[in-house]
Amino acid sequence: MAKQAKQEFVQHITPREENFSQWYTDVVKMADLMDYTPVRGCMAMKPYGNRIWELIREGMDKRFADTGHENVSLPMLIPESLLMKEAEHVEGFAPEVAWVTQGGNEVLPERLAIRPTSEVLFCTMFSQWVQSWRDLPLKYNQWCSVMRWEKTTRPFLRTAEFWWQEGHTVHATAEEAQEETLLMLEVYRAFIEDVLCIPLFTGQKSDKEKFAGARATYSVEAMMQDGKALQAGTTHNFGTNFTEPFEVRYQNKEGQLAYCHETSWGTSTRLIGAIIMAHGDERGLKLPPGVAPFQAVILPIAAHKGGVMETCEEAKTQLQAAGIRVKLDDRDHLSPGWKFNEWELKGVPLRLEIGPRDIEKGVATYMRRDTFEKGILPLNSLAEGVRALLEDITREMFSIANQFRLSRTKDVFSMAEMGEQVNVGYARSMWCGRRACEDQVKEAFSATSRNMPFDQTPIAPDCVVCGEAADKVMYWAKAY
Amino acid sequence: MAKQAKQEFVQHITPREENFSQWYTDVVKMADLMDYTPVRGCMAMKPYGNRIWELIREGMDKRFADTGHENVSLPMLIPESLLMKEAEHVEGFAPEVAWVTQGGNEVLPERLAIRPTSEVLFCTMFSQWVQSWRDLPLKYNQWCSVMRWEKTTRPFLRTAEFWWQEGHTVHATAEEAQEETLLMLEVYRAFIEDVLCIPLFTGQKSDKEKFAGARATYSVEAMMQDGKALQAGTTHNFGTNFTEPFEVRYQNKEGQLAYCHETSWGTSTRLIGAIIMAHGDERGLKLPPGVAPFQAVILPIAAHKGGVMETCEEAKTQLQAAGIRVKLDDRDHLSPGWKFNEWELKGVPLRLEIGPRDIEKGVATYMRRDTFEKGILPLNSLAEGVRALLEDITREMFSIANQFRLSRTKDVFSMAEMGEQVNVGYARSMWCGRRACEDQVKEAFSATSRNMPFDQTPIAPDCVVCGEAADKVMYWAKAY
Repeated sequence: MAKQAKQEFVQHITPREENFSQWYTDVVKMADLMDYTPVRGCMAMKPYGNRIWELIREGMDKRFADTGHENVSLPMLIPESLLMKEAEHVEGFAPEVAWVTQGGNEVLPERLAIRPTSEVLFCTMFSQWVQSWRDLPLKYNQWCSVMRWEKTTRPFLRTAEFWWQEGHTVHATAEEAQEETLLMLEVYRAFIEDVLCIPLFTGQKSDKEKFAGARATYSVEAMMQDGKALQAGTTHNFGTNFTEPFEVRYQNKEGQLAYCHETSWGTSTRLIGAIIMAHGDERGLKLPPGVAPFQAVILPIAAHKGGVMETCEEAKTQLQAAGIRVKLDDRDHLSPGWKFNEWELKGVPLRLEIGPRDIEKGVATYMRRDTFEKGILPLNSLAEGVRALLEDITREMFSIANQFRLSRTKDVFSMAEMGEQVNVGYARSMWCGRRACEDQVKEAFSATSRNMPFDQTPIAPDCVVCGEAADKVMYWAKAY
Repeated sequence: MAKQAKQEFVQHITPREENFSQWYTDVVKMADLMDYTPVRGCMAMKPYGNRIWELIREGMDKRFADTGHENVSLPMLIPESLLMKEAEHVEGFAPEVAWVTQGGNEVLPERLAIRPTSEVLFCTMFSQWVQSWRDLPLKYNQWCSVMRWEKTTRPFLRTAEFWWQEGHTVHATAEEAQEETLLMLEVYRAFIEDVLCIPLFTGQKSDKEKFAGARATYSVEAMMQDGKALQAGTTHNFGTNFTEPFEVRYQNKEGQLAYCHETSWGTSTRLIGAIIMAHGDERGLKLPPGVAPFQAVILPIAAHKGGVMETCEEAKTQLQAAGIRVKLDDRDHLSPGWKFNEWELKGVPLRLEIGPRDIEKGVATYMRRDTFEKGILPLNSLAEGVRALLEDITREMFSIANQFRLSRTKDVFSMAEMGEQVNVGYARSMWCGRRACEDQVKEAFSATSRNMPFDQTPIAPDCVVCGEAADKVMYWAKAY
């Protein structure tokens, strides 16, 4: 029975090596994370996928609060005239804006954009909220959805509407703004590596790849199991690019008016796509314990036998009391084998089986989703045992992903080497800093510059593309 | 100094008796809950107001989960053709919809509504998600913002965009749908009365006042301090009104196809308006401890004196460790008097002062925001003392609001009595059930039927309006 059930599940998942993209779509759908909707390019997050996003939100929100940020909620609509105030920004976003032109039966005098991002609204409000140096810094964040009218969409990776957080801050000095930009990059890095178990490349974007209107953009870049890059979060230092046209000024201690220095930073439901593609396997999803809706699932074996359901209920109560997210799967019309496969597909980090023989020995039998390793845990200290295993799973998932990343990252010293390397992963090279060389890599290999690591120790004297003197170390990859 | 500061604050707040509406606007603005934006009818929730909403969300979300609901996220846009499928629903919402007609540079083949509410989208998805009786019930909720193109707006009470939760469920039988409709009404009642300290009238709406497309609508109705009603939450039983046109069907145990029975229910940022108008006073906001961003504020007295700041820090640490939301106001450029008034304005339930004389005696001096009562608490068991006071404040705030409500609610037996009573509060009367009589009350007194209580014991034989035989007990009031 178990074998049959496994086949039924597994035969629907395309193997990763055969077609990674199809494997991704299969896992997303079969793990019941989302569904397509009749609204072009917009998805619905189902309970399981939505819960992962809620857990990401809770975890990051706490880190934002701990670093002195407060949440606000700004309108979802932005008048066109506001969007027009910063030239580069308009150019970057106008082609992908959804426009509201009618309200009720009335044709609006001015078009309203559904926010693609909220820099211009925040700056409008900051100009009202900041008067004196005493008001600074303002460190705000909002959790919301935004809309970008994308031509081709994929669940979680690129959807017309997506859910995200956008931090927006204003500071008295350029130094403080730069500090904030790097601080939030570090907050992202720590959360994504420590909780999502995804190792990152951290650094600065090229001018070509930076955010429309920013002076400097930094990113955390992840590697998926097909070797491609996924930009997992960005932080931007705007300097006074927006605060000048929006007149966000403060009176300094000397009584003079000065422009504020501004940052913004964002991460989105893309992170769920990153989790799937960084960790998943032939059996489906593999969730990091920190954001798994259920960290452990309890499966009764021979549930009709005396004491089995009672012991399972007690185990559940014990784990819940210890703050562990646990599910007791008491459905009686499905075989244990079917359930094994379903919870593997859904990526639950730890499976606990409790049957008459386990109860006799006073144990639960476990299986780890990350390594498939099996073992037993004493029932009377189940919570401690489960907690230790979840911590080990977290470490191990990061370690496996990190080994993969290292095996797929290489220094390259010629375009030929670059061409080979970006087919399997990340290439690190010297770069002269010129846009023309970036364009050439894109044209030749469909790869893009990802970011310049903070460690800029040269690995060669010359640009990998043009051969001229180069002082920049750059990571390159094909990207989602 | 303290007296001067108090005057400065208080002179900006219009007295409630002079102009309740202006008092409301003054408090909203001065307590820094929100700000107006350049987007017509849309507000920005500032950190303090946004935090109250987050605490409402956390509290309600837990109760939704405890009653078996799961969160999802559906798109913010709804194709016009979907909105058209249920006739009454379209009629109710079409006049106040914001329409997206362009995406990027492309004119859309079909207009998309920014969701005013999501019944039609949920039904569209339910029709894909429900196959068998085993799939039922589906009990979903989402937290999001919605848009209704209102002509006149007021912060929190009526804004074009507002934040809310909308629950949507489908069930196998009519009985289960009705049970759910009443269950969620009770969840609302318990949260709003027990946590927000606002006593409610609970009952069923008239046909005229029910939700567009519902078979039955229930509401919880609060009384503001000007005697007017505020509808604080509604739950709807749709029967098969939507599931038929949307073909939300399931195969029952006998293998036959049957239509699902559907409910929805919602509460919104209006609740913040209700808190302000149910509890506030001449000094400003008065927040129920359950949703106060800071439940207690610690003010150092003579902060420069040895040991004061240290003791304040210790007190803060002790309260935080006990899970109490506490603020230590260590700003050194403001006098204690100024701070007293600011935190009163912001409605913090408990003020704790700690100065050299308090430290000598091993106490903190407290003042309750609800009663202005002062007293002392031993520092070595501060958390217990604060917790007990917060519980008492919660009880007392409900009790005061409830006494006010009872004093402003009266049975009426003639139109003359009705006219007098709706000027000061709620009128209870018999009603024949006819729309014409409701219209007449509206025309004569600008009052509307609020709801029919579950206790329908007649208080008279005849309709208060037409004098004919009546078997319905109804509450009437002027409403926000």
